[in-house]
Amino acid sequence: MPGSRVAFRIKAPEAQKVQVDLGRKYEMLRDTGGYWKVTTDSISEGFHYYSLLIDGVALADPASETFYGMGRMASGIEIPFSGGDYYAVKDVPHGEIRIKRYFSTVTNSWRRFYIYTPPGYESAAQHYPVLYLLHGGGEDERGWATQGKTDLIMDNLIASKQARPMLIVMMDGNMGGGGFGEQALVNFENELKQVVVPFVESNYRAGKGAANRALAGLSMGGLQTLYAGIKNTDLFGYLGVFSSGWLPMQQAISEAQYLFIKNNKAAIEQNLQLLWIGMGGKEDIAYNNCKLMLARFDELQFKYQYSEYPGGHTWPVWRNNLYSFAPLLFK
Amino acid sequence: MPGSRVAFRIKAPEAQKVQVDLGRKYEMLRDTGGYWKVTTDSISEGFHYYSLLIDGVALADPASETFYGMGRMASGIEIPFSGGDYYAVKDVPHGEIRIKRYFSTVTNSWRRFYIYTPPGYESAAQHYPVLYLLHGGGEDERGWATQGKTDLIMDNLIASKQARPMLIVMMDGNMGGGGFGEQALVNFENELKQVVVPFVESNYRAGKGAANRALAGLSMGGLQTLYAGIKNTDLFGYLGVFSSGWLPMQQAISEAQYLFIKNNKAAIEQNLQLLWIGMGGKEDIAYNNCKLMLARFDELQFKYQYSEYPGGHTWPVWRNNLYSFAPLLFK
Repeated sequence: MPGSRVAFRIKAPEAQKVQVDLGRKYEMLRDTGGYWKVTTDSISEGFHYYSLLIDGVALADPASETFYGMGRMASGIEIPFSGGDYYAVKDVPHGEIRIKRYFSTVTNSWRRFYIYTPPGYESAAQHYPVLYLLHGGGEDERGWATQGKTDLIMDNLIASKQARPMLIVMMDGNMGGGGFGEQALVNFENELKQVVVPFVESNYRAGKGAANRALAGLSMGGLQTLYAGIKNTDLFGYLGVFSSGWLPMQQAISEAQYLFIKNNKAAIEQNLQLLWIGMGGKEDIAYNNCKLMLARFDELQFKYQYSEYPGGHTWPVWRNNLYSFAPLLFK
Repeated sequence: MPGSRVAFRIKAPEAQKVQVDLGRKYEMLRDTGGYWKVTTDSISEGFHYYSLLIDGVALADPASETFYGMGRMASGIEIPFSGGDYYAVKDVPHGEIRIKRYFSTVTNSWRRFYIYTPPGYESAAQHYPVLYLLHGGGEDERGWATQGKTDLIMDNLIASKQARPMLIVMMDGNMGGGGFGEQALVNFENELKQVVVPFVESNYRAGKGAANRALAGLSMGGLQTLYAGIKNTDLFGYLGVFSSGWLPMQQAISEAQYLFIKNNKAAIEQNLQLLWIGMGGKEDIAYNNCKLMLARFDELQFKYQYSEYPGGHTWPVWRNNLYSFAPLLFK
């Protein structure tokens, strides 16, 4: 609708109360014939998760596409906007998203990642650099491929020669233990280093060495990037942290990291080509944590590149982060 | 639970009436603390779509995985059973499912298919035969890859040398017009012949000629297979029709087909290596239509191979159809 408003209509003749929860809850009004209706205010552009509340129960809307986010299948709505052209399907060469199963010796189970292969990968002989790209808490390996529109963003960037053709491995970062505790972070680091990177490099034409490897993630994936990245700049030459920053309850982990940076600053800065930190503006729930972390980096005179794109802690911001970050890689 | 019963529990303190719709509707009973509960009778093994009915509104359950089926995102539940071993994730070489975009000159839009590539495809030089595999009404190109477990069924069949390594193209069969009318069937045939087959054969190492092409589908996809297959046995040497059969309101189409078979019987039988027809037992909604069609085939002395697997018009049947059909292909 004009002004990015959204009209919802649902048939629920026996319900007592129907709401739409888009972050803000909208009361729906009962119409004749058992329909409930509401038109929202202007809501921000891009992608939003939402729920229907039928008599107080939060449910997915079967009339919409659902996405694995919020630790469950949630409804999603896309508000088109002119700034979203970079992830439109255009008449350019298209790569593939592939779904690959592998056995993890860390979790002792079969797992999957999604992998983007750029246009021409199939018929080429060359090796490609690899970005390992991590979803947030409550999401999984489908997040970047589905909500993130990774293939379209990359197809367009590569076609316009703004980014180098690369592989993008979208791992499942759920390692048990909630993802934010140190054991989960250690498990993630082991999964990445012991299992996924070797598997990718033996099953795909993936370039080796830190100059050919980048690691980035959003929110929980940003913490995983900080944890597994800064300790391993001999393996990953490029790091991207989207909408993240050490949390106050992670002081033991973060203080150990600041100390590690202090003690190894020259070596890290020698290895690391780029530490890129993106934030969804002041409304991003990670804003304050990130600012505290950056203040510590500044104290240590530890270099990073900082960028803000308004939109809070949401997929439109993370899509734009990928769009901004990918062109900086493997130069 | 023992005996394939399922326990549902949902918090809905303000709801007046809560049900689970698994084909049969189960009334849930209000417990203390706002929870509603029910334990079902023994339900049949394998995969079921279901909805929650909150005060009469059918909704997807956000606590479950959702699937695009029934023309919308529906909840799904998997009842494990011993007969499902053929689609378990096993320690065998695994192929990939790839998501590929292509431009359709029939719909004048960008579309997608999913394609299974067998283990070793990447590093081999050989060409592979191709099965074009079609979903049912209300589903899309994700159906066979997700609900259908195509990759696991094929990985296991190939590992045990029961089926030849092959490519499986899972098209989007939604061509507008509901899928069952002749215009939609013509559009599908054009999409298949003019767009998808040439695209697959120029973008993948796909064998050419009828000996290297099979076409199969379930329900609506079975009608598409009958329509585009029997007319084109010079292109497709193997046809599979799962839970389908011409509908009574399609008399013009079906009579034209019977006449075509009558007039071209020798050529069709010369070309066609296999017409395989599977049915989910008497409880399959397509059972009577199929039987009427087979009676006409019998009148025409037109050969087919018929198979029943109990379970009705459901994904456990179609998974088993693929498991039975794939080993017969490209021999």
